[in-house]
Amino acid sequence: MMMQNIDRVLIESLKQRRQKLANLIDFPAILWSGTNSPRNFANNVYPFRASSHFLYFAGIPLPNAAIRLDDGKITLYINDASPSSALWHGETPSRDEIAETIAADAAYPMDELRSQIDGAGTIAVQDAATWTQQTQLLDRMVLPQLPPSGIDLELARAIILLRVTHDSGALAELKKSAAVAIEAHKAGMRATKSAIREAKVRAAMESVIIGHNMTTSYNSIVTVHGEVLHNEHYHHPVQMGDLILADVGAETPTGWASDITRTWPVSGKFSSTQRDIYDVVLAAHDACIAKIQPGVEYSDIHLTACGVIAEGLANLGILQGKPEELVEKDIHALFFPHGIGHLLGLDVHDMEDLGDLAGYEDGRSRSERFGLGYLRLNRPLRTGMLVTIEPGFYQVPAILNHARSQYHYLINWERLEQFSDVRGIRIEDDVLVTDNGAEILTGALPTVANDIEKLVNC
Amino acid sequence: MMMQNIDRVLIESLKQRRQKLANLIDFPAILWSGTNSPRNFANNVYPFRASSHFLYFAGIPLPNAAIRLDDGKITLYINDASPSSALWHGETPSRDEIAETIAADAAYPMDELRSQIDGAGTIAVQDAATWTQQTQLLDRMVLPQLPPSGIDLELARAIILLRVTHDSGALAELKKSAAVAIEAHKAGMRATKSAIREAKVRAAMESVIIGHNMTTSYNSIVTVHGEVLHNEHYHHPVQMGDLILADVGAETPTGWASDITRTWPVSGKFSSTQRDIYDVVLAAHDACIAKIQPGVEYSDIHLTACGVIAEGLANLGILQGKPEELVEKDIHALFFPHGIGHLLGLDVHDMEDLGDLAGYEDGRSRSERFGLGYLRLNRPLRTGMLVTIEPGFYQVPAILNHARSQYHYLINWERLEQFSDVRGIRIEDDVLVTDNGAEILTGALPTVANDIEKLVNC
Repeated sequence: MMMQNIDRVLIESLKQRRQKLANLIDFPAILWSGTNSPRNFANNVYPFRASSHFLYFAGIPLPNAAIRLDDGKITLYINDASPSSALWHGETPSRDEIAETIAADAAYPMDELRSQIDGAGTIAVQDAATWTQQTQLLDRMVLPQLPPSGIDLELARAIILLRVTHDSGALAELKKSAAVAIEAHKAGMRATKSAIREAKVRAAMESVIIGHNMTTSYNSIVTVHGEVLHNEHYHHPVQMGDLILADVGAETPTGWASDITRTWPVSGKFSSTQRDIYDVVLAAHDACIAKIQPGVEYSDIHLTACGVIAEGLANLGILQGKPEELVEKDIHALFFPHGIGHLLGLDVHDMEDLGDLAGYEDGRSRSERFGLGYLRLNRPLRTGMLVTIEPGFYQVPAILNHARSQYHYLINWERLEQFSDVRGIRIEDDVLVTDNGAEILTGALPTVANDIEKLVNC
Repeated sequence: MMMQNIDRVLIESLKQRRQKLANLIDFPAILWSGTNSPRNFANNVYPFRASSHFLYFAGIPLPNAAIRLDDGKITLYINDASPSSALWHGETPSRDEIAETIAADAAYPMDELRSQIDGAGTIAVQDAATWTQQTQLLDRMVLPQLPPSGIDLELARAIILLRVTHDSGALAELKKSAAVAIEAHKAGMRATKSAIREAKVRAAMESVIIGHNMTTSYNSIVTVHGEVLHNEHYHHPVQMGDLILADVGAETPTGWASDITRTWPVSGKFSSTQRDIYDVVLAAHDACIAKIQPGVEYSDIHLTACGVIAEGLANLGILQGKPEELVEKDIHALFFPHGIGHLLGLDVHDMEDLGDLAGYEDGRSRSERFGLGYLRLNRPLRTGMLVTIEPGFYQVPAILNHARSQYHYLINWERLEQFSDVRGIRIEDDVLVTDNGAEILTGALPTVANDIEKLVNC
């Protein structure tokens, strides 16, 4: 069991969250924390990750627990450890001690939950043991794959309304997480010159995260094949001339995530072609952040990136045509096929367990367009939202081979061939929307090519 | 998808395993690989771990796949990647290429499995999505918690008979895994003096494992509170006078595990009391390994450790009485409450997904005795078995407080108090049973106190 002192800031935030939820719904909510998922056998489990919704209101990860939120009050349900547990897991705090830690109003064994369940809404937890329990106790199907309905949907919308902007307790944690991810990226850059395989660079980065008693917030991408967007292999050799794309984030013990991508040259020096493309991606990154402020549509931020990339590639002679027309035809998306970013919070794609409910404003849905369909966030920005800004450039063989015949007049394929040492570049920061514009939580990590080179060479 | 060249040794072993299984059962076996388990949302998954039984016959981890073993032949069932998958995951090998890699005799899409299922035995996979599929396709309950019965039990017994001793393909992998775990422990020792918290030592150790493109074979224990047996916290400060107990193992990309524990002084020098107890635990460790040979009962190895520990503690004046009588009364177990070890292979507790079927010889079951009930292995040793030998000494408050009134005449409590700087010590190696006795796969990592001190100080 994870026990730690929760600081006053977080406790105050927890109380406010509970009260705010009460202002939004007129029925009780019961949120389960979840249980360990088995790896290769029941006693060899993956590291426990509590449900984010539970963490949002309870503050700390408690396996096999539930909370009932009603009218601003919180009741904790958790079993005391068995006597034999003290042998294997050491002395653990009692139910009442835990309740005090999280400022719960009352606490009972899990069995008591059964009698407190009537008329309660819930959100499905990811592990099968827990959603089976949710389904049985509530006597209705509660499955992570099933979109919520009825009061569960009402509860989901209320929680989204709270979680979509961050309070001071959340921001304190998010900044800790960002600080550690920054150190991890610096360590990765420093370790690159002596690394033989990608795995060594990954090790240097994750070592920083583990050393701060945090965990990765998602499976790290550390690769010389940045053109493979979800690349979770680390066996490739790291060679002079390669770029390393590292998409690595940290997560605090209470569950708050960071998400950073940097791309750097193995040799410590970008080739001129690599630098040309890098600067296009960086220009998109900077233009997007400059545009962030309350009220701006996130989809417009995305289109800003598309425009800057199209223009940059046109200036380099890779694309032929006016930037606006190239974007309208989704030509930019041949090289930048994903969205400009997503919400960030307790989840690296915050609240993606609820599908697009959190990411998409009511009444909006995913576009059919190739260049927009992968956009995970489509809402007007509000103060307190934390979003990633992560433009990229990739030469994905599957896309380019398909496009070769279709777009021969918009792409100068001969010119593109000169950029064959640029397989994948992405630059990603975590950006908080403020009243005045934007605060880059990960801004202490350089983005400019010269500065990146210095870090690799130091 | 994990693809790599499988070397000839492993391919030959795979073929032999398939043939040997055919010699033991007269019905087909279908083994599923399993799928990713979600962490906090469906797209943020824990690192994939294929079912060990699948790995044993297929050789490499393939998510969402199955194999059918019949009469020495193996058929692979796996879907080709979707065209859009190439965008996100890169070009993946085709079904036929995978089939060739693992020397499969035929390969089909997963849908074809339905028609090949009649009369087949299986073993439950850990993740709910897969055991649901197993249950539906086979039209009987297939659950990891449910002990196998009928042909599933027959299949389990046959696979256990094979997996309980290791062939050359397995040994090659097990040795790689051991070599990396050894390096990890050395790195942990070297990192200790400059570490402020346990997490830093853990980071140094896991960094070696990640850097070799391996994973931990279980959640690492790296703690100054070795008396908490399953301690998965890493936040304690590391202070002069503390002992660090590190139980950390590696797992190769094809799933083979190692499992090493060492205990070392933070200061680089054991106190005299720490060294006294350390030497008792080491004497037990050495006596057990000296006794290993084919035909010897593993429970006798356990009792050897109990006897050496009881004798050592009596010599130190902590226990009062003859060692044999102390062991008969389970007094040793107050300080050494767990078993001397377990099977090791694809799982760190090999085949523990089958309960005690693998660990306990037919007709045997767990002892009611406190000093024996936690023994995970109770079989006569055979050439090719790999077992851990892991004696320990712990001052567990929950046990000692309970014993204080009961055993005042067998324990010199005043003397014991002088050893208060010894909270937990364990020394664990991975030992292969050979025709001539034992080969310590992890033997390149020192166990002697002086040598341990040198590593911490270097």
